[in-house]
Amino acid sequence: MLDENITENIEVTMAEIGQKARLASQALAISSHELRQNALRKAAKILRARASEILAANVKDMAFAKEKNISDAMLDRLLLTPARIQAMPTGLEAIADLQDPVGQVMAAWGRPNGLHIQRVAVPLGVIGIIYESRPNVTADAGGLCIKSGNAAILRCGSESFHSSREIASALREGLSQAGLNPDALQMVPTRNREAIGTLLKMHHDVDVIIPRGGQGLNARVMAEARMPVFAHLDGLCHVFIDQAADIKKAIEVTLNAKMRRTGICGAAETLLVHRAIAAQILPDLGAALSAMNCEIRGDVETCALIKTARPADEKDWSCEYLDAIISIKVVDSLSAAITHINQYGSHHTDCIMTEDQEIAAEFLQKVDSAICIHNASTQFADGGEFGLGAEIGISTGRIHARGPIGAAQLTSFKYKVLGNGQTRP
Amino acid sequence: MLDENITENIEVTMAEIGQKARLASQALAISSHELRQNALRKAAKILRARASEILAANVKDMAFAKEKNISDAMLDRLLLTPARIQAMPTGLEAIADLQDPVGQVMAAWGRPNGLHIQRVAVPLGVIGIIYESRPNVTADAGGLCIKSGNAAILRCGSESFHSSREIASALREGLSQAGLNPDALQMVPTRNREAIGTLLKMHHDVDVIIPRGGQGLNARVMAEARMPVFAHLDGLCHVFIDQAADIKKAIEVTLNAKMRRTGICGAAETLLVHRAIAAQILPDLGAALSAMNCEIRGDVETCALIKTARPADEKDWSCEYLDAIISIKVVDSLSAAITHINQYGSHHTDCIMTEDQEIAAEFLQKVDSAICIHNASTQFADGGEFGLGAEIGISTGRIHARGPIGAAQLTSFKYKVLGNGQTRP
Repeated sequence: MLDENITENIEVTMAEIGQKARLASQALAISSHELRQNALRKAAKILRARASEILAANVKDMAFAKEKNISDAMLDRLLLTPARIQAMPTGLEAIADLQDPVGQVMAAWGRPNGLHIQRVAVPLGVIGIIYESRPNVTADAGGLCIKSGNAAILRCGSESFHSSREIASALREGLSQAGLNPDALQMVPTRNREAIGTLLKMHHDVDVIIPRGGQGLNARVMAEARMPVFAHLDGLCHVFIDQAADIKKAIEVTLNAKMRRTGICGAAETLLVHRAIAAQILPDLGAALSAMNCEIRGDVETCALIKTARPADEKDWSCEYLDAIISIKVVDSLSAAITHINQYGSHHTDCIMTEDQEIAAEFLQKVDSAICIHNASTQFADGGEFGLGAEIGISTGRIHARGPIGAAQLTSFKYKVLGNGQTRP
Repeated sequence: MLDENITENIEVTMAEIGQKARLASQALAISSHELRQNALRKAAKILRARASEILAANVKDMAFAKEKNISDAMLDRLLLTPARIQAMPTGLEAIADLQDPVGQVMAAWGRPNGLHIQRVAVPLGVIGIIYESRPNVTADAGGLCIKSGNAAILRCGSESFHSSREIASALREGLSQAGLNPDALQMVPTRNREAIGTLLKMHHDVDVIIPRGGQGLNARVMAEARMPVFAHLDGLCHVFIDQAADIKKAIEVTLNAKMRRTGICGAAETLLVHRAIAAQILPDLGAALSAMNCEIRGDVETCALIKTARPADEKDWSCEYLDAIISIKVVDSLSAAITHINQYGSHHTDCIMTEDQEIAAEFLQKVDSAICIHNASTQFADGGEFGLGAEIGISTGRIHARGPIGAAQLTSFKYKVLGNGQTRP
């Protein structure tokens, strides 16, 4: 790790990091699963042994962040506690236990001329990850990259610089102890923001960029990156309560989708209710939301049915509150709900509550989102909940990765063609 | 179709095309397979009925191209004959007959909480295709896009403008006759090259760009595109003859890989030969290549073994000849061959000739190419030969599509999550 205060020669430093990453990625790509598992388990042990050093580094980061007058929400994301530190090695060990995504034969078939063709998963190469305040992204994202045979270049937020560096150092030592090249995981050794611009131009040495942060970061990455990006711009998730919904179920799921955690991308922001059921469900649902201190912004009909609602305006339908606020609109039909979601939503996660299987099937087909849910909370939009083991983010893009990005989504593939002397006529 | 001479308001024209494509793509994405098949079959009929109009348009294009003093190779690609015209409807009907790539359940699994998760193929959205002189790309690429539920924006080379427009018009009529929106297939209605620059910036309305042309076009697209690109930069393919090769088989496959057609991306350009077998194979192989009028550029050892070889220089190892020229190098080991291929190759298609299964497996794992072949010609690098039905190109990138891009590679996916009222704890 280089000095944290590099401000000159950022391009040179970054170019060196890129070259080292490319070289390390080539060896890691063909390393055995046992070695990669070993590296993750060694790193987990080192993280446990270094808990106090990591806490001390986090104290420095917290002091710096408070000086910068960072929001309470960001301070909370930055804060490491013994329990949060413990979650990192546990997560790495869980990642180590997953099936190897590399080398999986995804498809295999024969040809009339006797050729046998296999499509086999291979690592993507070098992955750049740009994140903000949560230091444990270092372990989660780094771990998934190592698991999937990819080299990682990590750029943390300036607030989490010391904490992230300690964590990255444990992962690098894990790689070394397993006999792998530690340059498969490198941290950008400076807080200087120019490093991001340089990283986003390094398309020869970085195969894909994954931003993990707010809309400002995502927008910058989408605008500047000269390589593919796996990004989610936002998570404007909807619940649509159809006329054939089970009312009790719909209320429970809506409350969970909105209020379980309001700050995550899978939290519901807008509720659409079929007119035929609105009068039956909205008064109770409104009361329950208000009892949980959720602010309600409704259209005219909603405001007539929920006393605590205040009128929504046009921009409420496009707003990812990430807070205890919900917008509610009464719609005429399934089709009006689908149109609203495809127009105002962010193609992340949307849910229908209905007991009518045909209506549900039409919603799941026509809503153009990464995750379409029937009769369950939008807060299940999560790699762990999907059984992927861990995730590096949720992609709302349509290319390569869509939805939760787990180790399998960090692979590409190659074709192996097995012949016996065939020539093409 | 607008006038061919538009030079003003290109941005306005292109923006309208983009918006129409987006709108059409939304309807096409959820259209039934029967309708899409019907559109392809109707288009095939129309193409057959219009053969003479298409030939007449092609005569205009050929006259224009000759004025521009285009190379003979390009003139040949531009030329339509009755047989070449016939190949288009036949191809469309073959595409129609393929399995629907949309709606395929790619994976499905249950979770302990009773959620059932499906990963289902969906169209990518809007695909921009920029090609050069071959007018039949209009039918092949347009047909694959329709098949896979994607809207297409086609930009042909200026030489093939009239021919391509006639073909596109048949596809649009096929869409209309099947009751689908013809704007799912649009041609850029101008030869003005500014239209390409505008198209490459339209990332809101174009989800992916596929260039089909020479290195100049590919490089421009890679540099300017603000959306993902499925591209192959070049096809610098290798054959490596291992010491455990069957000599007769290795000679036959090498001759086919190099000489069957020299101008395609899957043609071999460099031959690597293990030192232990060089003296046994190179004199005969050299004589056979020379008998077929293939120029040989060899390293010192090759020149000593093949009388007709002239010395290769460093840039021969990086050269995609696309012609009856081969570079030949003697190497010390499997590992030296792999290093050479990964350094000088283009990650397209590479082949090993050996009877040693372990050596073959190591080559197929360690050569970092989209297609790695054991004991068969590199000229099998083709979607049709892979059994994909048709291809829109061969990608050497690592994101989303790699190798032959058929209808299945033109899809993304969504997750459908089926619940029964589950909330997340």
